[in-house]
Amino acid sequence: MTTTSWVDGADAGPFGLAHLPYGVFSTTKDPAPRIGVRIGEQVLDLRALATGTFFLPWIRPAFHEQGLNGFMAMGPPAWRLVRHQLTELLADRRHADQSATLLTPASKARMHLPFNVADYVDFYASEEHATNLGRLFRPDSDPLLPNWKHLPVGYHGRAGTVVPSGTPVVRPRGQRKSKDGPIEFGASARLDIETEVGFVVGVGTELGTPVSPDAFAEHVFGVVLVNDWSARDIQAWEYVPLGPFLGKSFATSIGHWVTPLDALAEARVAAPVQDPAPLGYLQETERFAYDLSMSVHWNGTEVSRPPYRGMYWTPAQMLAHMTVNGASLRTGDLYASGTVSGPQPDQRGSFLELTWGGRDPVDLGEGGTRTFLEDGDTVTITATAPSAEGGTIGLGEVTGTILPALD
Amino acid sequence: MTTTSWVDGADAGPFGLAHLPYGVFSTTKDPAPRIGVRIGEQVLDLRALATGTFFLPWIRPAFHEQGLNGFMAMGPPAWRLVRHQLTELLADRRHADQSATLLTPASKARMHLPFNVADYVDFYASEEHATNLGRLFRPDSDPLLPNWKHLPVGYHGRAGTVVPSGTPVVRPRGQRKSKDGPIEFGASARLDIETEVGFVVGVGTELGTPVSPDAFAEHVFGVVLVNDWSARDIQAWEYVPLGPFLGKSFATSIGHWVTPLDALAEARVAAPVQDPAPLGYLQETERFAYDLSMSVHWNGTEVSRPPYRGMYWTPAQMLAHMTVNGASLRTGDLYASGTVSGPQPDQRGSFLELTWGGRDPVDLGEGGTRTFLEDGDTVTITATAPSAEGGTIGLGEVTGTILPALD
Repeated sequence: MTTTSWVDGADAGPFGLAHLPYGVFSTTKDPAPRIGVRIGEQVLDLRALATGTFFLPWIRPAFHEQGLNGFMAMGPPAWRLVRHQLTELLADRRHADQSATLLTPASKARMHLPFNVADYVDFYASEEHATNLGRLFRPDSDPLLPNWKHLPVGYHGRAGTVVPSGTPVVRPRGQRKSKDGPIEFGASARLDIETEVGFVVGVGTELGTPVSPDAFAEHVFGVVLVNDWSARDIQAWEYVPLGPFLGKSFATSIGHWVTPLDALAEARVAAPVQDPAPLGYLQETERFAYDLSMSVHWNGTEVSRPPYRGMYWTPAQMLAHMTVNGASLRTGDLYASGTVSGPQPDQRGSFLELTWGGRDPVDLGEGGTRTFLEDGDTVTITATAPSAEGGTIGLGEVTGTILPALD
Repeated sequence: MTTTSWVDGADAGPFGLAHLPYGVFSTTKDPAPRIGVRIGEQVLDLRALATGTFFLPWIRPAFHEQGLNGFMAMGPPAWRLVRHQLTELLADRRHADQSATLLTPASKARMHLPFNVADYVDFYASEEHATNLGRLFRPDSDPLLPNWKHLPVGYHGRAGTVVPSGTPVVRPRGQRKSKDGPIEFGASARLDIETEVGFVVGVGTELGTPVSPDAFAEHVFGVVLVNDWSARDIQAWEYVPLGPFLGKSFATSIGHWVTPLDALAEARVAAPVQDPAPLGYLQETERFAYDLSMSVHWNGTEVSRPPYRGMYWTPAQMLAHMTVNGASLRTGDLYASGTVSGPQPDQRGSFLELTWGGRDPVDLGEGGTRTFLEDGDTVTITATAPSAEGGTIGLGEVTGTILPALD
């Protein structure tokens, strides 16, 4: 199999043949959302392909759905088969003329949520992030709470407010209370981001069937970038004792493109050794992370480069933990890593950490300085990963612009 | 309009004409789940009615769905119209012969989840419950945390593990750690219930549009009984700082029948006065609760009678709070009250409170004594509410039996 595509410019960019992420798009001419695969600056229409004989008959119905759920539910054999077929189609120049009619320029595609989100779980898997927050919020005690090194702490977020990249984010209003101040109501004054990596469940489970970490690839379809917008002042007042609620539930943005796990095969790296060793149900035969280099741009200025590979709790461990009590998985479940922060100050994945609670403003050059988000600000998170033959793939972006709060 | 039904025995029981709750059922003969309305000991098949001309054409498609979501999304005009038509049909004896063919004995109906759960939110709205838990867990400090009287504390639960009444509950396994003991893995030793009332959203909202408490009845379709099973040992170790997760996510049981708000018109009562007065967005023009008398049976012995009417935070306030940050609602969102506990010891809605942390066993008569749930135990929660002309309606039950943990 060749590793170059006949699609113009695809080989040199983030969406070459080694990537082939899936998304859901529509066009002005055909406003029905449908599944596409990204190749270079083009989107290949899989619904159109599925009207012919290209896919096997049992696979075709999945590409007549408006989201990826049906395809994701089919499991690894279908995922591998389709990826193999698409790779051949987009590599073999003999298909170029006929298949080019199925391409839409990405710039003309309107992108939708790639899948219907079932449950959304957010973890807290970065030791550096948890330590930073502990230092900021509990300066006089051990920054890591007693449970942190024994289990991947996580909680459920609001699935209904997961939105596609580009959706404007209206500054939330709510209650807040500073340490010695009164209770106030108003627009959040400490609006923040969380730079995260999301994992999308394809194959669900029955209630009462825990998933071993080694079964990760039998259930997880792919990876998507996540920005879990956070109103720190609302969160700080509400979160005791049941956890974050309105400080997070107003919006969680995800990227347009779901990168299949097979596209990240070259990005698999050994995950950090854990001390103490976790309980058996959290032990992987081959402990792995993904080498994703993330980048955070604030109004166009790069302000952070969080490295995903160093996260303490791995994707397979989070999956095993989430199900050890017998909780079932559904196709479309999304679970995210929590803020990705590295050990260096310029590797922090939230503004709360980057500005150390607002103490140290970030310099945006001609854009002035910032502590938390101002109205009109735009944040864009990107990531790259190593790919075959020394290349890299780019996982697209997740972006959003802040709109003023309601009156 | 008459207030008696031609269906045998319906008038005297919990499911008379004043009730008419909706559910989803199937039969051995026709295993396709479909919507029915409960009348006495019978279920009236609304899909069958919708194949004729009984309902208006624009309403019929809703009753060809496998759940209530489509009907609930239609909003109050459709809800009122259908309720009016069903009341007439079941009251007027001239319809008896023809309509009797559309009845299935409730004992022969297999019941399913009545709607597809979108997001599931659980509140903490009982002052007595929050105070009891504060006393048990933080005996040396103020039992209510500082935020408790200013906002209805809540969090998101797992929508995918909301199960219909009767579904067996497998005892969850997980991590736990007693105060000075080691970290252990195993089956929960402190398995508990939470007696709750759930509210089902029919009409959703767009992102960025808070809902006033006075708009409660424009969005909420009805009420369902909830048992939010809780593994207290798992919860105690995991919940800092992001809230309950695996201690709750293994199963949440809901009743088979959704009682429409109109059936609770006579049960509306003034809610307790709040001191301090809450912020404006939580203020109702007419502050109300529902007079639901709940009952908890443990292996057949009644152990508690929690009164819903005394809850500090009302259903309308919970709805307003959940959306004040701009979070959207979706049809099928379920939000629950949190444990309903009254001021008296025999009004506590969790076994943690009833046994005071396991100190005071509950006497089940010939069934022995209990602190927390044992394998094989069955818990059944019921509720009644005042209805027209001094009658009562019964909201059905939510029941479940504990199965042993996996090996």
